[in-house]
Amino acid sequence: MLDLAIIGGGPAGLSAGLYATRGGLANVELYECAMLGGQITGSSEIENYPGASKVVSGMELMSNWQEQCTRFGLKIKQQKVKQITKIDDGFNISFEGNSEDTQAKSIILCTGSIPRRAGIKGEDEFFGKGVSTCATCDGFFYKGKEVAVIGGGDSAIEEAIYLAKTCSKVYLVHRRDKFRAAPNTVEHLHNTKNIELVLNANCDEVVGDNMGVIGLRVSDKKTNKERLLEVPGVFVFVGRDVINELIKQDDGSYLCDINEQGEVLTNLKMTTSTKGVFVAGDMREQASKQVICAAGDGATAALSAIDYIDSLGKKG
Amino acid sequence: MLDLAIIGGGPAGLSAGLYATRGGLANVELYECAMLGGQITGSSEIENYPGASKVVSGMELMSNWQEQCTRFGLKIKQQKVKQITKIDDGFNISFEGNSEDTQAKSIILCTGSIPRRAGIKGEDEFFGKGVSTCATCDGFFYKGKEVAVIGGGDSAIEEAIYLAKTCSKVYLVHRRDKFRAAPNTVEHLHNTKNIELVLNANCDEVVGDNMGVIGLRVSDKKTNKERLLEVPGVFVFVGRDVINELIKQDDGSYLCDINEQGEVLTNLKMTTSTKGVFVAGDMREQASKQVICAAGDGATAALSAIDYIDSLGKKG
Repeated sequence: MLDLAIIGGGPAGLSAGLYATRGGLANVELYECAMLGGQITGSSEIENYPGASKVVSGMELMSNWQEQCTRFGLKIKQQKVKQITKIDDGFNISFEGNSEDTQAKSIILCTGSIPRRAGIKGEDEFFGKGVSTCATCDGFFYKGKEVAVIGGGDSAIEEAIYLAKTCSKVYLVHRRDKFRAAPNTVEHLHNTKNIELVLNANCDEVVGDNMGVIGLRVSDKKTNKERLLEVPGVFVFVGRDVINELIKQDDGSYLCDINEQGEVLTNLKMTTSTKGVFVAGDMREQASKQVICAAGDGATAALSAIDYIDSLGKKG
Repeated sequence: MLDLAIIGGGPAGLSAGLYATRGGLANVELYECAMLGGQITGSSEIENYPGASKVVSGMELMSNWQEQCTRFGLKIKQQKVKQITKIDDGFNISFEGNSEDTQAKSIILCTGSIPRRAGIKGEDEFFGKGVSTCATCDGFFYKGKEVAVIGGGDSAIEEAIYLAKTCSKVYLVHRRDKFRAAPNTVEHLHNTKNIELVLNANCDEVVGDNMGVIGLRVSDKKTNKERLLEVPGVFVFVGRDVINELIKQDDGSYLCDINEQGEVLTNLKMTTSTKGVFVAGDMREQASKQVICAAGDGATAALSAIDYIDSLGKKG
């Protein structure tokens, strides 16, 4: 039985693996079915990871994490976790495919969440080349320029306001004529002078060339009148899917408490409502969705897991 | 009036400055009276900051943070903050010396905390060369070796148990014959086979040579019998002073709520009990006291400060 199983190999999971093994847990495995390094490996420019002072790509940023994080005994397995369930003395982990189940005394969940795409022509083609799902990450690259934001929920409005501080103008493109967000947020939106609302709008195409995005083509839902918003940046905020299927139990409940958005509830110690289960990174509530924050979470979760494993020894 | 004043120039403060200015706050100052980079600049070897894959000194680790974190407009001032008080539309900051007061709409507190020294002969001389105040940071460097822990409180016992997983043997040196820690913790201590208790002991001297520590000389308080614990590592856990004098008000209260240890109370968003005041790093409750965690805190606190400044604009 493992001391600890880490689910997910992004910044949170790798940092947790580093801290858990360097802290003396001998028997730690990390499961990642996709590329190690997480979502950030899809980003073309990062300049806000403290200590990585040059502007680097996500692939470059994460390139040496694997070696560093496995130096102290962390084992990384390319397996997709299917389900985690509670058993008498810990947790059972089943996998997709033919792999045998594994058991672990403790778990750190760091599978993250995935921003939804709007499903517009050109969106995937120009993702990372002008199309972004993160204002905090990429807004600064459009300093003094005009950008478009797609979406009408709370996060779309908040991100538009965030971008309006850096960008010369923000078009907020929404398919309805009203916003469902909190009145305060909507009022703040209306008071932000350099945000232009483009309402009742269909997003038809992200237009670009070899250099990246050059505009967003929209049309009015009633009049069908077309308009090209000439912007080098398009930010898509149409929701986010937390990867939490693997903690769903057969009876429909979850291994630990989650909120309405499906995010795992936690605290400053990264513990969850279930003893022995910890969380780190974008999968948790109120995550900042930044590499530096996810990595900090991972370290904290590992230190909490070490304390937990120690407390089990106490009983023996 | 500043949008934001950041108090402290360690990993938390620098990361906060990076995120606040890159996020569009135009008017941000950071105050640090000592060396930028914080306590970690006193460490000789760091191998657990994710992404810094070579073993580096603390000075090397932090060497390029200042350039990166000031690239977006952060101003750094070498001033010692004396007191922060609430005023009508924000906060007043006074300084030691002749500097004029400054006002800011929001504050991020990141002054950290300082581990106390035991006051033993040789302790300062060999600090960073075998004497440490952080098991998480330095324990791994003594893998398979024997170490001594000085202290008898909860944290000394917890750190001794942490070290016992990595080190072959841990001497726990305590000046009394009993521990005041929680019964569970003490029971766990007694169940950890490779911890030897050295009770009723005076620590007389940290002994070393050009290569670093070679032992800890102790004597029995009753019999005066001397003993040399031959260890290359001595960990001192005799308490920690939170640097919070600057948030103490003239009436003895504090700018925001603190706990019994003097740490600022907070939550996942790094807000405090006082609107507009945020906290990051070792100054907050339940801090992991790691560079990666402090930097993550700083980023989160900055994003919360940006939201707060936005919300003020809303009213205007």
